[in-house]
Amino acid sequence: MNGAESLLRSLVASGVEVCFGNPGTSEMHFVAALDEVPGMRPVLGLFEGVVTGAADGYGRMAGKPACTLLHLGPGLANGLANLHNARRASSPVVNIVGDHASSHSLYEAPLTSDIPGFARPVSHWIHASKSALTVGADAARAVQAARTGAGQIATLILPADTAWSSADGAAAPLPVPTPAHVDAATIERIAALAQSGARTAFLLRGNALQGEGLRAAGRIAAKTGARLLCDTFAPRIERGAGRVRVERLPYFAEQAVEFLAGTELLVLVGTQAPVSFFGYPDKPSWLTPQGCRIAVLAHPHEDGAAALVALADALGAGQVIAATNPRASFDAAPDGVLNGETIMRSVARHLPEHAIITEEASLAMGYSGLTEAAAPHDLLTLTGGAIGCMMPVSVGAGIACPERKVVNLQGDGSAMYTVQSLWTQARENIDVVTVIYANRGYRILANELKRVNARTDGAHAASMFDLENPTLDWVALAQGMGVEAVRVESAAAFDTAFAGAMKRHGPMLIEAVI
Amino acid sequence: MNGAESLLRSLVASGVEVCFGNPGTSEMHFVAALDEVPGMRPVLGLFEGVVTGAADGYGRMAGKPACTLLHLGPGLANGLANLHNARRASSPVVNIVGDHASSHSLYEAPLTSDIPGFARPVSHWIHASKSALTVGADAARAVQAARTGAGQIATLILPADTAWSSADGAAAPLPVPTPAHVDAATIERIAALAQSGARTAFLLRGNALQGEGLRAAGRIAAKTGARLLCDTFAPRIERGAGRVRVERLPYFAEQAVEFLAGTELLVLVGTQAPVSFFGYPDKPSWLTPQGCRIAVLAHPHEDGAAALVALADALGAGQVIAATNPRASFDAAPDGVLNGETIMRSVARHLPEHAIITEEASLAMGYSGLTEAAAPHDLLTLTGGAIGCMMPVSVGAGIACPERKVVNLQGDGSAMYTVQSLWTQARENIDVVTVIYANRGYRILANELKRVNARTDGAHAASMFDLENPTLDWVALAQGMGVEAVRVESAAAFDTAFAGAMKRHGPMLIEAVI
Repeated sequence: MNGAESLLRSLVASGVEVCFGNPGTSEMHFVAALDEVPGMRPVLGLFEGVVTGAADGYGRMAGKPACTLLHLGPGLANGLANLHNARRASSPVVNIVGDHASSHSLYEAPLTSDIPGFARPVSHWIHASKSALTVGADAARAVQAARTGAGQIATLILPADTAWSSADGAAAPLPVPTPAHVDAATIERIAALAQSGARTAFLLRGNALQGEGLRAAGRIAAKTGARLLCDTFAPRIERGAGRVRVERLPYFAEQAVEFLAGTELLVLVGTQAPVSFFGYPDKPSWLTPQGCRIAVLAHPHEDGAAALVALADALGAGQVIAATNPRASFDAAPDGVLNGETIMRSVARHLPEHAIITEEASLAMGYSGLTEAAAPHDLLTLTGGAIGCMMPVSVGAGIACPERKVVNLQGDGSAMYTVQSLWTQARENIDVVTVIYANRGYRILANELKRVNARTDGAHAASMFDLENPTLDWVALAQGMGVEAVRVESAAAFDTAFAGAMKRHGPMLIEAVI
Repeated sequence: MNGAESLLRSLVASGVEVCFGNPGTSEMHFVAALDEVPGMRPVLGLFEGVVTGAADGYGRMAGKPACTLLHLGPGLANGLANLHNARRASSPVVNIVGDHASSHSLYEAPLTSDIPGFARPVSHWIHASKSALTVGADAARAVQAARTGAGQIATLILPADTAWSSADGAAAPLPVPTPAHVDAATIERIAALAQSGARTAFLLRGNALQGEGLRAAGRIAAKTGARLLCDTFAPRIERGAGRVRVERLPYFAEQAVEFLAGTELLVLVGTQAPVSFFGYPDKPSWLTPQGCRIAVLAHPHEDGAAALVALADALGAGQVIAATNPRASFDAAPDGVLNGETIMRSVARHLPEHAIITEEASLAMGYSGLTEAAAPHDLLTLTGGAIGCMMPVSVGAGIACPERKVVNLQGDGSAMYTVQSLWTQARENIDVVTVIYANRGYRILANELKRVNARTDGAHAASMFDLENPTLDWVALAQGMGVEAVRVESAAAFDTAFAGAMKRHGPMLIEAVI
């Protein structure tokens, strides 16, 4: 057994089942080992942003890490933006980054670079293996690091000689770290505050937006009348008809300030106090009202769901959940102009049970309220603001949950960053329908230009936002990568196309011209 | 005048004429200033790897920096791989990276990241502006840093408030640093060595492969009988019929060792002693023969061309240049099977004078000898090994030299990394013909798997190299981004298509199925 096989067997023993990869020469022994070791599914991406974004999506839905396989510093570099998003999503990810053989590192070969330097801004844990005899144990430690807290980014650098030299065997898995438990004193303190009569809101993230945590939040809201809120960009939200209703913080600072006005007590569960996405010359960064008390029920590394259950019990909340979303009938097909609203009405109307919505379009965010009344589903959003995230997240989510439909609501500008995702969707026959909001531009930037009080009438500036010269042909792009596609230009045509897409299996793209 | 305008005016005053950009909200004031300040051409890329690769190509051909405009840490991260290549090419590049306003950096907003951390592995110079009053001077310093030595990467981080706050004016340009001069003692020492009777080779890079430097090398070769060599991957080589013949170091270590066998004196001009691209279990990393003396005529930061002229004079070399490439007639059109050789015969046959060849395909590298007999041209290659380089380099080279035809010889696997380049080629009507070597796979990796002595018969490993499931349709992909395209499957059809492409202006793609 060589080091590569030891590494791979150790990863599999630690519960890693999927490897999203874009390998090169320095990773050849790892690639060869894929045929020696059962239990690891290799998934090829044609660009590393696809690989890391897919690992993020997989981690969000599987609740455990996939590994990536990346080619030296530049391969890692191409995956950094989506690792930034994964870090903000608290997704567990194990990166395997090949490096030159130790003896070759003496020389300044073209691909030599500072791999730990590239890794540092996005990684919670970094280690470079020194010997084939230790890579197995290093892999077990990497998996444990990735599963610490809500989820972390662990980067293991694998010099080629540690892969090709002889190893002794695989490492046994390490214990999965249990999330930190919130102590009884904190529960008591928050319970007292929540009964103080202050106008209270709970801001939820992580496992507080799923399963038992979410139901406990619903019990607390029923008992205390508190509002339940979530961040604008949460990694994963269980929502839809019958689920506890959670209000989403608006994106723009001035709207968020209005939304939070009157709140006297803000209880944080697995998140931080809300701040605006960007700073502006004359707008606030800090969104909580002046004088509002901020209390922490659970820090992000703590078990927010368990804390909510304990708090609900401490409050003597019953099993009644006050605020669940009603199921709307959506009898009538949208008609007329195709726009953000009519698209979302069709999505809400036809969304199958337990679908996964991945969202990266400002117009999808703006109308996301409509799907609260759709069939129960998960919503995954752009946690780190690095665009080019949701096409690959859809890949990973689809691989983690092959029995669930993925609906990717994607802006045309952001879709281009990791457009290669479509090829992997076709290759792996992932059950994802991509809706391209084809407004032919970085629409949000044209809006932001006004919001920062900059001149807005210039041709040069306008040229940095428009995607009309030339117009992207999404049907051609999708078909060029083996994904069936259709272009629609009316609400009725979209409704028909989307309904059809929900009834078939496998990747499809709908270019919605708006 | 605000900081953004001060910055832009200072860049223009320092000779920066082109801004390759992919901006976001934090760069809005810079974008608005583009309409206030004449002299800066904005070029939009739909992915940051396009932006930085284009800046590399521009720098290689213009000999001065363009600036990039990137959106915070993740935007920079997406551009890092091609900045790694640019660094290895000694290309001058000025990165402008927007950041959150200083006041907003207090908060952990989603896009907050360690921007200097991302920049460090690829940047020679990094500075974060502190005030709108200093950004102009910071820009002048950044341009000077980028023009130091053969060319450097300078990264200027621009917090949004330093762009929107009031500034006093533009900064005057700083002196362009002159390259270090090789001293007379070194010239004398190398002259003595070169006349010692040892079997001598000169390994050239940088300006030693252009103009006066290259001619001086030819004079030296005529006088001494020395071989003239260049690195496998040089940033820019002036070559073709009538130009001094320079032998290109082979890619694979064992071939390079054979190529250098018998060399008793290796004189380095602007480069380092040759090492293999990767390390292998049983192959050498160091390629110079044992006992061969290595002497440095010019370090990479020194003026290699001037040193060669001085050396030629010191040797008493005449104006005769022994070894120029002959012009081949290429009378007959290639016929039969379309492959690396027949493609290159057609390229050599139809290449117009002063074309720029950009090369990122192992099959193009393997037959590059054929174009030595083509019309005089420049050859730009993949200096840093980070694939996804040459499609954007073609964008930048075409913008730097609008009167010259660009021929991009591109593998299908590597083309996918920055496929968005095609859109910018269409938008800017760049005169580039992209030839896709469509062998439906990472062919070089299947070969490397054997070379590292790994198992080669496994299905999982094979699945990491093949691009056949599904097959990429390059005609659809190009047309989807507004670039005219054609697919050819025979040598004769390629010859006809390529000949036609050389006679028209504007971007075109030829999918050569091999």
